[in-house]
Amino acid sequence: MRSVAIFSGGLDSTVLLHELLAGGDEVLALSIDYGQRHRVELTRAQETAARLGVEWRLAELGALRSLLSGSSLTSDEIAVPHGHYAEPSMKVTVVPNRNMILLAVAAGWAISRAADRLAYGAHAGDHSIYPDCRPEFAAAMAGALALADWHKLKLHCPFIAWTKSQIVRRGHELGVDFAATWSCYEGGPRHCGQCGTCTERREAFRHAGVTDPTDYAAD
Amino acid sequence: MRSVAIFSGGLDSTVLLHELLAGGDEVLALSIDYGQRHRVELTRAQETAARLGVEWRLAELGALRSLLSGSSLTSDEIAVPHGHYAEPSMKVTVVPNRNMILLAVAAGWAISRAADRLAYGAHAGDHSIYPDCRPEFAAAMAGALALADWHKLKLHCPFIAWTKSQIVRRGHELGVDFAATWSCYEGGPRHCGQCGTCTERREAFRHAGVTDPTDYAAD
Repeated sequence: MRSVAIFSGGLDSTVLLHELLAGGDEVLALSIDYGQRHRVELTRAQETAARLGVEWRLAELGALRSLLSGSSLTSDEIAVPHGHYAEPSMKVTVVPNRNMILLAVAAGWAISRAADRLAYGAHAGDHSIYPDCRPEFAAAMAGALALADWHKLKLHCPFIAWTKSQIVRRGHELGVDFAATWSCYEGGPRHCGQCGTCTERREAFRHAGVTDPTDYAAD
Repeated sequence: MRSVAIFSGGLDSTVLLHELLAGGDEVLALSIDYGQRHRVELTRAQETAARLGVEWRLAELGALRSLLSGSSLTSDEIAVPHGHYAEPSMKVTVVPNRNMILLAVAAGWAISRAADRLAYGAHAGDHSIYPDCRPEFAAAMAGALALADWHKLKLHCPFIAWTKSQIVRRGHELGVDFAATWSCYEGGPRHCGQCGTCTERREAFRHAGVTDPTDYAAD
């Protein structure tokens, strides 16, 4: 089975990569530069893919940044919110239609490489903030992908009903080097420890009962 | 009604722009450089948008070219087929997942601009060659778009059941300057007159009973 994985270099997609490899898939990883503030994740992605011996491509689509305005991830003028990741204030981190764009681009590469499936690491913890992480969105995209090309590509979302702490637990079983993954939306030299995604990351390790190796700037 | 139109500068999307304007829409037009061989269409798009007084943006995503290989539109090594546009040989002009990518990117911009709908000019003549021009694909994408963001964006495909000659006829009624539109996949200085899309263009004018103002290299 040949799988293309959307691989941001974050915690979820890094566990996804390990999960696919553990299942015996031939894995190709695609990272996408859409002009995100936390571009440091792309460096982590490249390093992790190299360590795992996985073919890795970067789609340099930074020109999307100016099209997809209105999010704190693509506008320097909009601050990254601090606090709990499920608060309504976190909706300012939604990048307009981001996941459809990532899925569409990755599917194009997957089809040109004759892959059997396209994997992405959406999980249940994101559902209340990110509409494009919900199972109903994934199901609609799976339907569209089945019609988009003469080559049939399946969409694979193994974590869509999992919490982030379940992903951490699974990653721990699979021997994931969590210190090599990046979550923080601020994109500074260290994880800030205070933004929504840092808060979510810390909570996931705590709930999973797994030691958090992350170097947070604020404790 | 604010509409974002995917605007290649080709015949179909130029008529689409006129159709939306005739209906009273506020129209924003997006052209997308995905590394296509016939980039000349983008220049035509810019000129037409300026003439119509329509806000125009170019998404410079030329890096997609190397991801979306296997098509004669994105590979210099694969020749553009000549002959009838409905022949199976024309499938080499299918760019993997192209329309999903165009729709996804344009939807991201449309959402960030709070548009009511996203319009694209797929038509019935393309159905047998381009899977992502079929009504079932458009319906699946409309479903996915309704779930992709908290802002609800409608997909509008007014030509999906039309032949290209019907589009020509409608464009003629609307006073479209057809000479300013570009179709040829070869992307040379003049329309080649022999590739599938030139053949289709000529036939559409003939069937519509409208004078074809195109300067073809081969007659």
